[in-house]
Amino acid sequence: MTESDVPVTTFHPYRWGDPQRPAHLPPAALEALAALGVKTPKNPPVTPERIEPSPSRLPAEARTELGAVVGEEYVAVDRETRLAHTRGWSTTDLLKLRSGDAVDAPDAVVHPADHAEVVAVLAVCDRRRIAVVPYSGGTSVVGGLNPVRDRFDAVIAVDVSRLNRLEAFDEVSRTARLGAGTRGPRVEKLLRDKGFTLGHFPQSYEGASIGGYAAARSAGQSSAGYGRFDQMVVGLTVATPRGDLTIGNAPLSAAGPDLRQLFLGSEGAYGVITSVTVRVRPTPAVRIFEAWRFPSFAEGTEAMRALAQDGPLPTVLRLSDEVETQINLSDPTKMLGGGPEGCLAITGYEGREADVAYRREAAGHVLAEHGGHPLGAEPGEAWRTGRFRAPYLRDPLLDAGVLIETLETATFWSNVPSVRQAVTTALTESLAAQGTQPLVLCHISHVYETGASLYFTVACAQTDDPVNQWAQAKKAANDAIRAQGAAASHHHGIGIDHRDNHAAEIGAVGMVAVVAVKEALDPTGILNPGILV
Amino acid sequence: MTESDVPVTTFHPYRWGDPQRPAHLPPAALEALAALGVKTPKNPPVTPERIEPSPSRLPAEARTELGAVVGEEYVAVDRETRLAHTRGWSTTDLLKLRSGDAVDAPDAVVHPADHAEVVAVLAVCDRRRIAVVPYSGGTSVVGGLNPVRDRFDAVIAVDVSRLNRLEAFDEVSRTARLGAGTRGPRVEKLLRDKGFTLGHFPQSYEGASIGGYAAARSAGQSSAGYGRFDQMVVGLTVATPRGDLTIGNAPLSAAGPDLRQLFLGSEGAYGVITSVTVRVRPTPAVRIFEAWRFPSFAEGTEAMRALAQDGPLPTVLRLSDEVETQINLSDPTKMLGGGPEGCLAITGYEGREADVAYRREAAGHVLAEHGGHPLGAEPGEAWRTGRFRAPYLRDPLLDAGVLIETLETATFWSNVPSVRQAVTTALTESLAAQGTQPLVLCHISHVYETGASLYFTVACAQTDDPVNQWAQAKKAANDAIRAQGAAASHHHGIGIDHRDNHAAEIGAVGMVAVVAVKEALDPTGILNPGILV
Repeated sequence: MTESDVPVTTFHPYRWGDPQRPAHLPPAALEALAALGVKTPKNPPVTPERIEPSPSRLPAEARTELGAVVGEEYVAVDRETRLAHTRGWSTTDLLKLRSGDAVDAPDAVVHPADHAEVVAVLAVCDRRRIAVVPYSGGTSVVGGLNPVRDRFDAVIAVDVSRLNRLEAFDEVSRTARLGAGTRGPRVEKLLRDKGFTLGHFPQSYEGASIGGYAAARSAGQSSAGYGRFDQMVVGLTVATPRGDLTIGNAPLSAAGPDLRQLFLGSEGAYGVITSVTVRVRPTPAVRIFEAWRFPSFAEGTEAMRALAQDGPLPTVLRLSDEVETQINLSDPTKMLGGGPEGCLAITGYEGREADVAYRREAAGHVLAEHGGHPLGAEPGEAWRTGRFRAPYLRDPLLDAGVLIETLETATFWSNVPSVRQAVTTALTESLAAQGTQPLVLCHISHVYETGASLYFTVACAQTDDPVNQWAQAKKAANDAIRAQGAAASHHHGIGIDHRDNHAAEIGAVGMVAVVAVKEALDPTGILNPGILV
Repeated sequence: MTESDVPVTTFHPYRWGDPQRPAHLPPAALEALAALGVKTPKNPPVTPERIEPSPSRLPAEARTELGAVVGEEYVAVDRETRLAHTRGWSTTDLLKLRSGDAVDAPDAVVHPADHAEVVAVLAVCDRRRIAVVPYSGGTSVVGGLNPVRDRFDAVIAVDVSRLNRLEAFDEVSRTARLGAGTRGPRVEKLLRDKGFTLGHFPQSYEGASIGGYAAARSAGQSSAGYGRFDQMVVGLTVATPRGDLTIGNAPLSAAGPDLRQLFLGSEGAYGVITSVTVRVRPTPAVRIFEAWRFPSFAEGTEAMRALAQDGPLPTVLRLSDEVETQINLSDPTKMLGGGPEGCLAITGYEGREADVAYRREAAGHVLAEHGGHPLGAEPGEAWRTGRFRAPYLRDPLLDAGVLIETLETATFWSNVPSVRQAVTTALTESLAAQGTQPLVLCHISHVYETGASLYFTVACAQTDDPVNQWAQAKKAANDAIRAQGAAASHHHGIGIDHRDNHAAEIGAVGMVAVVAVKEALDPTGILNPGILV
């Protein structure tokens, strides 16, 4: 269903995406996995029908009050709905559900119809001291949907998926206001009907939605050309326990702190984002994807830096390291089948014909000057068409006994080699010490004038306790990232997984500011307890 | 001293810039001014020697303690230093000093040597309840340096001009950490020695400095190519009464709210910015400035929008309306001498040769398609060489009895015509009602994909009470901007002048967040009282 118009609205609780399109491991992959010591787990995953969350603890009176706000039929306490809103999509989240652990299931899932209903729901929850997990696409991979129940008896998910309309459109200014629950494919459908695109294509595209993009500062695969999501936002509407907030009356201004940048990344802890006004662009007339090979990651990195700093920038720009290139993750149909030598880079160009022609030619010169060898359009197109399939592959890999997870950071260019080395070493040493020598893959997929993101994929055999196995490896990676002074997260957010690194990076005074806003806007602390502060 | 290497360190208290280079009005201007009803004021301005601030109210013990921190010689209580730090450079500020009003003079001016001394100074002031005006270039035009003494007996200016070094430089990542007190020309000198430029050229360039750029979200004349100052910032160090803060460990990240964007625009109310890490770029190989004429502002605006939305963007892009074009402010040597018909646009291109050639040709096509007629390089170069002279012209205009001031806002493209009309009408009606029919000039000088800034210059005859005359006109303009839903300020900041509009635009809940941070970081409220909150 790549870039399909129909949003995926019913997920399997622990299998990604469209159930009609499951992924299967290519035969070569199974052989390669055996070489890693991977063995099929003793127990197959618990089927969803057999997973039983603990009984809902939502008091009957609260349920009645919430029903009075949104309509009884929009206060779900059934097992399936609660399971579908249990945690997010990290590998740990999936491993827990696979083992039948649904203790984090919300006590109810409320589906408000609009901003006013969100406000009223928060009022009920604030008065009755019910914790609220703001829920849009539900695709967090960092524990952002796993609240600390803490001092709250009940916790509900407030699912904004009914807020999924194009609420306003300004063709002259090229802005669109979209409901927070509008998922990626629907966003593109709504805008394409107007001749426009948002240009935001994270790997979670089929499931994630506008509110989550904003709350967790998503970055998509076309970020070189279209920017990160937080750079696309010109306005926000937020419902907080203290009242409403609508901000963004100009592209940029000098009128004080940019409050948009305070709520972007707030991960539901300051309020429920109900709509986002984004900058949009005309549907590109031309779209060309190509691949290049570099002799080494170091040379490829220099090429990325040259384009990021001196231009021209392609719309898509990514570089896999030697391991990732060999594993061939860029083309899931051939994964683990033995990729090309060196390092694969993908370049994509979208826009008007003359502009694409200029950028493509000039960028090609830069890539070649830095040791790049053109591989033509075929591998580029293979990457483009397969790019939303990677999340599907995790399910059969987990079935086969592979522990597979990703993590990411960002740093300045001069620190890129060191961060890559340190994180790779930390992951490798932690997992090897647990008896499961891993493959650690790395790529650069988002570039800036001053630095870049580094995205790691880790694969190894599962131990008998893969949740704890990964917890140790993740801690080692976090420690390495912190020691390197790199970002706690480039585009996954903080959630639970990056709390310590986030606190360390903003320091005590930064946390004073973050906490002050929380306590002022959410004095009862009902919003996503344990997240951000 | 345009783009000179030597920072201006001693200002006349109410005459701009280098005293060796005063501006004189061209003869044609004097005739044109007579037609506006301008008459030389009855009383010439009070000479600085005759302006007497009230006696310093800094307690002797506090002076001793501050001296112990920074050295006695860096705690100035002399008349000249206090006068030089009295308010900023708005026309109202100048009119007050010209009339001998120095009641807002700080009780002392402290010159810390480094970040640690700033921290220690804040500790003394916090304990002794002394208000602090963070002072870098001192060029606020919105009352940002005019503290409300409020409940504080004494107020001191903390002048960071000694923090004026290139503290760190990363050529690979293209970042530079600069002391907050480094003024524009010195920034360029320090970077030019490395082969780089910041590319930030506000009209206040000769006087303003890094800390003020950050605290008030400055935007320079090359913003189309280099971005606004807040877009150049990758890191900040801030001293607050609650402790130190150093933020910015990656170009961009997903780790929570972007605290850089919380302190940018905080106007000294959250802390004293002591250093800023900025993105820098290589000194451009090529620099070309040209001018174009458009039949009307509406057609010129469409051309600006086309370049901002579909590119390619020049490095400098500005469009004067018919009145501004006629007044010929773009070339101060010919000001009021009768400019060309239609609307003048300036385009500038800086960068590498091939890139400049491509952008210049492609942008030229876009401009021509939208009705632009090329005027060649001469008027473009005239603008470039004269661009830092405009502030000098205000002094002889005030001497001659002209009330002259500027203000600015930003809005989305679809709202640009309406905002321009509303603000022009508000200013004209207010001043006409006071018996002083004004000239109202407007230009677009900063463009974004979704909108643009609008910058207004107003000139008319002074009444007997020009401070009140302008206060009425400014209020009318603020009301029109607020009614239009446009930004309280595009690049001048909030200060005192835009407090009401800022509060209205962020709303009650936005203000709750802004105040919460203030109270958490500055519980005693010593920092720039009356500003921001």
